[in-house]
Amino acid sequence: MTSPPLRVLVWGENVHEQQNPIVREIYPNGMHNTIAEGIAEKGEAEVKTATLQDPEHGLSKETLDATDVLVWWGHAAHGEVQPEIVDRVLARVWEGMGFIALHSSHYSRPFIRLMGTSCSVTWREAGEKERLWVCNPGHPIAQGIDRYFEIENTEMYGEPFAIPTPDEVVFISWFEGGEVFRSGCTWKRGNGKIFYFRPGHEVYPIYYHPTVRLVLRNAVTWAKPDPIKWIDSCPQISADQALEPLTIKGPRIHKEGEAGFR
Amino acid sequence: MTSPPLRVLVWGENVHEQQNPIVREIYPNGMHNTIAEGIAEKGEAEVKTATLQDPEHGLSKETLDATDVLVWWGHAAHGEVQPEIVDRVLARVWEGMGFIALHSSHYSRPFIRLMGTSCSVTWREAGEKERLWVCNPGHPIAQGIDRYFEIENTEMYGEPFAIPTPDEVVFISWFEGGEVFRSGCTWKRGNGKIFYFRPGHEVYPIYYHPTVRLVLRNAVTWAKPDPIKWIDSCPQISADQALEPLTIKGPRIHKEGEAGFR
Amino acid sequence: MTSPPLRVLVWGENVHEQQNPIVREIYPNGMHNTIAEGIAEKGEAEVKTATLQDPEHGLSKETLDATDVLVWWGHAAHGEVQPEIVDRVLARVWEGMGFIALHSSHYSRPFIRLMGTSCSVTWREAGEKERLWVCNPGHPIAQGIDRYFEIENTEMYGEPFAIPTPDEVVFISWFEGGEVFRSGCTWKRGNGKIFYFRPGHEVYPIYYHPTVRLVLRNAVTWAKPDPIKWIDSCPQISADQALEPLTIKGPRIHKEGEAGFR
Amino acid sequence: MTSPPLRVLVWGENVHEQQNPIVREIYPNGMHNTIAEGIAEKGEAEVKTATLQDPEHGLSKETLDATDVLVWWGHAAHGEVQPEIVDRVLARVWEGMGFIALHSSHYSRPFIRLMGTSCSVTWREAGEKERLWVCNPGHPIAQGIDRYFEIENTEMYGEPFAIPTPDEVVFISWFEGGEVFRSGCTWKRGNGKIFYFRPGHEVYPIYYHPTVRLVLRNAVTWAKPDPIKWIDSCPQISADQALEPLTIKGPRIHKEGEAGFR
Repeated sequence: MTSPPLRVLVWGENVHEQQNPIVREIYPNGMHNTIAEGIAEKGEAEVKTATLQDPEHGLSKETLDATDVLVWWGHAAHGEVQPEIVDRVLARVWEGMGFIALHSSHYSRPFIRLMGTSCSVTWREAGEKERLWVCNPGHPIAQGIDRYFEIENTEMYGEPFAIPTPDEVVFISWFEGGEVFRSGCTWKRGNGKIFYFRPGHEVYPIYYHPTVRLVLRNAVTWAKPDPIKWIDSCPQISADQALEPLTIKGPRIHKEGEAGFR
Repeated sequence: MTSPPLRVLVWGENVHEQQNPIVREIYPNGMHNTIAEGIAEKGEAEVKTATLQDPEHGLSKETLDATDVLVWWGHAAHGEVQPEIVDRVLARVWEGMGFIALHSSHYSRPFIRLMGTSCSVTWREAGEKERLWVCNPGHPIAQGIDRYFEIENTEMYGEPFAIPTPDEVVFISWFEGGEVFRSGCTWKRGNGKIFYFRPGHEVYPIYYHPTVRLVLRNAVTWAKPDPIKWIDSCPQISADQALEPLTIKGPRIHKEGEAGFR
Repeated sequence: MTSPPLRVLVWGENVHEQQNPIVREIYPNGMHNTIAEGIAEKGEAEVKTATLQDPEHGLSKETLDATDVLVWWGHAAHGEVQPEIVDRVLARVWEGMGFIALHSSHYSRPFIRLMGTSCSVTWREAGEKERLWVCNPGHPIAQGIDRYFEIENTEMYGEPFAIPTPDEVVFISWFEGGEVFRSGCTWKRGNGKIFYFRPGHEVYPIYYHPTVRLVLRNAVTWAKPDPIKWIDSCPQISADQALEPLTIKGPRIHKEGEAGFR
Repeated sequence: MTSPPLRVLVWGENVHEQQNPIVREIYPNGMHNTIAEGIAEKGEAEVKTATLQDPEHGLSKETLDATDVLVWWGHAAHGEVQPEIVDRVLARVWEGMGFIALHSSHYSRPFIRLMGTSCSVTWREAGEKERLWVCNPGHPIAQGIDRYFEIENTEMYGEPFAIPTPDEVVFISWFEGGEVFRSGCTWKRGNGKIFYFRPGHEVYPIYYHPTVRLVLRNAVTWAKPDPIKWIDSCPQISADQALEPLTIKGPRIHKEGEAGFR
């Protein structure tokens, strides 16, 4: 029995690539395409891309229904993502779609909405060194990495990172300038697995880094949906259907068969 | 040294009380006022009320800044709560304000936004018996209750309750009709403590029940803010301010002193 | 590429089967063999058994090293399991071996040691009905079950169940006599996945129940080790090996290359 | 109403102070006494001490019953702490006593038993600088600290720290030599609150550091027991006492009124 290929969609904001010559030079085809190449390079996943500028930001219901894991990179235009698209992404995560938020996507609308916190950080752009330590060497996302890996030049993010306690912390970063950061964290919302991964500032060629690409491949594999769907219909169960004998003993707001308020 | 009194605000949707004669008869002054009386009855807290119909739903910035714990009851009009008010409530929770969601407020906008999940349940209105078991007898919210307490007539909510794993489960309900439900759950978002408490259907006099009132008093005491505020400014740290000697080694997106993207 | 088969070891205390005629009649080959048959019946796993009476309780280092998931049933003789064997089981769990604790094994030495709590419950033997609700319909352990399943006659366990907050609650039980219980719970310790599953009282034929067997098969599949081992050597890192330039600036307790205290 | 003073017991292994001249010079009265002074210096707590060499290690049942929070420092002699004393400490934690494990006590028997994991770290003695970042600025244990504090000379502990996911991470350390570590972590076991705090190597005067002392004071205040005791009697509930009408429908292992197996 062969499993069907993992269907990954890489969503890129695609703004800096159009406006900033440094970013355009590093990522001439857009960051989303470089990220997609890194995920696809071992042939384990079928990877597509979508951008903010596409109709419905490339996130139609049909597209999301055909996506197992959504990888998100945004920065300058978080506020341009339409609320109804954010709602749609969340509904699909609750059903089981994995969601990987990259770098500045800590402030993306879907990530903030999944976390329920402000998701703030401290930050500095100085091209300093970052060393990511594996805190959880048994975790599938850290597979193939020894004790740590390094990124020679990057933007710094520092604690406090205003997130709910992660289910597991996979990486913590050490920065040359003196800060630390929980750079790889997992959560679950509904049936959807979520991973935040810090590396990826747009003025550095971070998505060409082989270990960063390895983590992305590990993460999409980890985040793939379990085979059953979340039951989320909020059904009214009539007294007749109760599993124990039940007589109606009080008044009601709702009629038999009526849907509840939302 | 005496502590200042705990400042509690009970928010009521105040819709059914106007429209449904059964609810009006049980709660002639509105559910919010009965809930407020129950919280205030031992004199430990200073309790005010606000409703959907008030300007800014009674939730101006000044009011929220002067609130330690917000208690929320909504059902028929979740969708009428303005998004910018929901944002304001969340920002204050992150700063430290406690948030208690009651009964049908599992579907209220602030609660869903804090959880990041659909918060769905199954339900049945048959006036059946509910028995709430204390799962965590050492928890401050269960103080004064022995092993369980009962509500003679209530609406049923059943699992699956689509929430993130609670930090602690304080109560689980047994229902006459055969279901179970995690009826008392805690979480933290930013510096704000959150408690969901299931009892409280509007066509039954549940907010007059002495143990329900005891739980409400315990819960607001538990949820009071810790004395320090959350730092949530997302500051840019300049290379000059770095704690270790740092030379700028790469390009930048942001100018010195600039705020980041949100 | 085919995966090697999952190697499951079912450990049975094998005491009641020798001493109690009711248990012997229901489980003439011992409970461990019936449990093993249930796990093996779809051919997905290679299942062996071990008992308290075997040399080293059937849990030699070689056997544990060749075990992916250990399933544990004990009741009358928890205290007879030798401490050094318990230590050995824990060390293998930390390395990645899954551990499934069944029914009265809430009080088994390995489970208590993995939890760090008393693991107490309330209980009643009256042959009453139990209904297990799926709280987390997307969880792999609940796969193939609709909203609930029932066991017609069983012992009751009631809350409070003195465990650390589970990572996920998969099942909550409703009992005919009026109690509730978190009957399916997961945790992780080191790299090992742990599942507690309540059904299984020895004077009822519960391990012949098709849905109980389905849950056992789902659980061993879920608990299988991830492909990498936990690094747990507690190494001294010499100043020479430091990743940043480091001069020794203070006194030391340990000599270079020395192991630390344990 | 004035609260009774918080009763803190500082347990010191008291071995290095006797054997190592560097430690004796820094801590002439023993580390436990210096730690106790730091906790007592604002007069908020009544602080006593006990050592390994005392009868029953100074941890008689009477002493533990009169202790609200136990602070533990051990290193060279973890294995000399008697198992029955460890059991006694755990039983009292489950009842509500707070437990603060310091530095090398990550490997102490009570801490390992509460965690259920190996609690391993990496380490280096080079007198290097440590900077502890506040990850959770709203947490009571971080009260009075701005964004970070520094220890000029210390032993390093590095990730992976083999612990279960903490309920909250309060501090993460940055080390001069390039490592990171989760240096302040909280858990709950039964009704007892647990805090691990990394600083405290015996050949450096770390327990004289004003911020380290502030954290110790904050931590014992945070860890104080809630006013109710954990119910942990594991009672048999007879069918007659069932809350719903119940007829005995099957065989039993236990007689009426019998205690269960442990």
